[in-house]
Amino acid sequence: MATCASLSKLLPLLRGRFCGHASFPARTTVRAWSRTAARCQLHRTEDGTGLTGTEDRFGGVTVNLADTGLPEDISESAFSRLLRDSLVQWKAEQKVAVWLRVPISLSRCAAAASFHGFQFHHAKHDHAVLALWLGEGQSRLPGFATHQVGVAGAVVDESRGKVLVVQDRNKTKNAWKFPGGLSDPGENIGATAVREVFEETGIRSEFKSLLSIRQQHNHPNAFGMSDMYIICRLKPLTYDINFCTQECLRCEWLDLTELAETSHTTPITLRVARLLLHGLEKGFGEIDLTMEELPAVYSGMFYQLYHRQLPPTLKS
Amino acid sequence: MATCASLSKLLPLLRGRFCGHASFPARTTVRAWSRTAARCQLHRTEDGTGLTGTEDRFGGVTVNLADTGLPEDISESAFSRLLRDSLVQWKAEQKVAVWLRVPISLSRCAAAASFHGFQFHHAKHDHAVLALWLGEGQSRLPGFATHQVGVAGAVVDESRGKVLVVQDRNKTKNAWKFPGGLSDPGENIGATAVREVFEETGIRSEFKSLLSIRQQHNHPNAFGMSDMYIICRLKPLTYDINFCTQECLRCEWLDLTELAETSHTTPITLRVARLLLHGLEKGFGEIDLTMEELPAVYSGMFYQLYHRQLPPTLKS
Repeated sequence: MATCASLSKLLPLLRGRFCGHASFPARTTVRAWSRTAARCQLHRTEDGTGLTGTEDRFGGVTVNLADTGLPEDISESAFSRLLRDSLVQWKAEQKVAVWLRVPISLSRCAAAASFHGFQFHHAKHDHAVLALWLGEGQSRLPGFATHQVGVAGAVVDESRGKVLVVQDRNKTKNAWKFPGGLSDPGENIGATAVREVFEETGIRSEFKSLLSIRQQHNHPNAFGMSDMYIICRLKPLTYDINFCTQECLRCEWLDLTELAETSHTTPITLRVARLLLHGLEKGFGEIDLTMEELPAVYSGMFYQLYHRQLPPTLKS
Repeated sequence: MATCASLSKLLPLLRGRFCGHASFPARTTVRAWSRTAARCQLHRTEDGTGLTGTEDRFGGVTVNLADTGLPEDISESAFSRLLRDSLVQWKAEQKVAVWLRVPISLSRCAAAASFHGFQFHHAKHDHAVLALWLGEGQSRLPGFATHQVGVAGAVVDESRGKVLVVQDRNKTKNAWKFPGGLSDPGENIGATAVREVFEETGIRSEFKSLLSIRQQHNHPNAFGMSDMYIICRLKPLTYDINFCTQECLRCEWLDLTELAETSHTTPITLRVARLLLHGLEKGFGEIDLTMEELPAVYSGMFYQLYHRQLPPTLKS
């Protein structure tokens, strides 16, 4: 996962909550990026020394405290005065937002900033990012990531009509489920499914399609954030189970017909088992979302797109 | 979005990176929750005063500095000594992890904690959460949310074979696209599509299905995190366009056949236009993932599940 090391990563997408219409609110999602990654520095303002940041074309200012030349031992009160003077300046310049990137060693500056209305936007590893909205109305600053992504793999042995299932250790109810787990940062959906299946069961497999998506909010196991749980269809490359005894109580190749009827499973596993049964009978083309990798607009990157298979005539 | 106000939200999912097998690593995803949300307090350790937190059944300790009775003006050095003594104690007790919930006003304690190896796990609004892994091998603590979710709505007027498209203002290339934007925290996919379509175009619509999913990593407009972009099929309830001039340059009901061939669009819009054209010809059942709301295991909550429509016989 990219850390927010570069200032460009910190520049906001401004989201207009109010539109030209009186009739209804709108949300502008305007992409912003750093054209000039000029280093921040202290500069003299009318009433003292102030902070200078990188400006974005939407009227926001980003200050990276690692680049300001602040003394490492600056006190909260000293930084508070510095920030107060800077805010006077930024307001006079009609800036709409201020972003502060605070190295963990200078965390006391976050406390000082909160004094002036700043709040945490996010924090990772060795730094926190705080933001303050100076524009009119409610903040139009974008939020941070809201979802964790978990992926399970339904490995189907077509020839025998069987599917690979596990029962978790440390669970009150011994329900059959598909092996899976949380995606690592930057990991593709299919890669998570294949990795988790291998780690839990010892079975090698390859990604075939995406079958289902579940969205759940205020998730107790996601620090109160949202959870996206995706089940993929995988094709087995090996068949000998060598399951993780630390993680699983049982692991079996179970008849799909049996899984589609058992009470010893979760509602979502039952549903996908029936989906797979339907696929076995009518062809997986009936239930699959296939994947394609396409180049992203920003150079060097690719994205993965999932949708129903198109007839070749319509695809190109 | 739920804030991490309650300690239970801070308790970790422990993820075992190494399995019983020497042959391959595994990842245990063990859910943990707070059975006793006992308030933290200072207590006397052999060599001074230490912090007490809430213990989880996986050997982790969570300390909420808002509950410890720390003096508001505690110095970094004083907190550092307090934490040092506590860590000696926790290591002796073979704790595997320590979570620190730090109110923004006590941010200086985060700097002190970083001195002992703590890093930011996440931060929101008025508090930060830091973590330190004390167990063997690499950390098995779960990460924070990794994805932002954006949703667009393809509003299809079946009778006229037209679809609602916009051209963004402030874009270098005037490409036709489906109206959409980022999900608000806790907002369902379909709700985002309907809201964004209304805010941008003034058209009222209802959610019909999920059509495509795009996953993109290291996203410059997601603070370096991952982006999940979902396109839904919506049914129009009104037809008179009243678009947001602040956000859009143009807004039209465009012939699907025209959108499916034009060069004035994005690759993903073109692809979905062809998908919709296929749906118009063969029936939307060919391209849809339909949604169902089901009760979650944790009480009072519901989740939304998307997959291909099943024959009624298999569904129940």
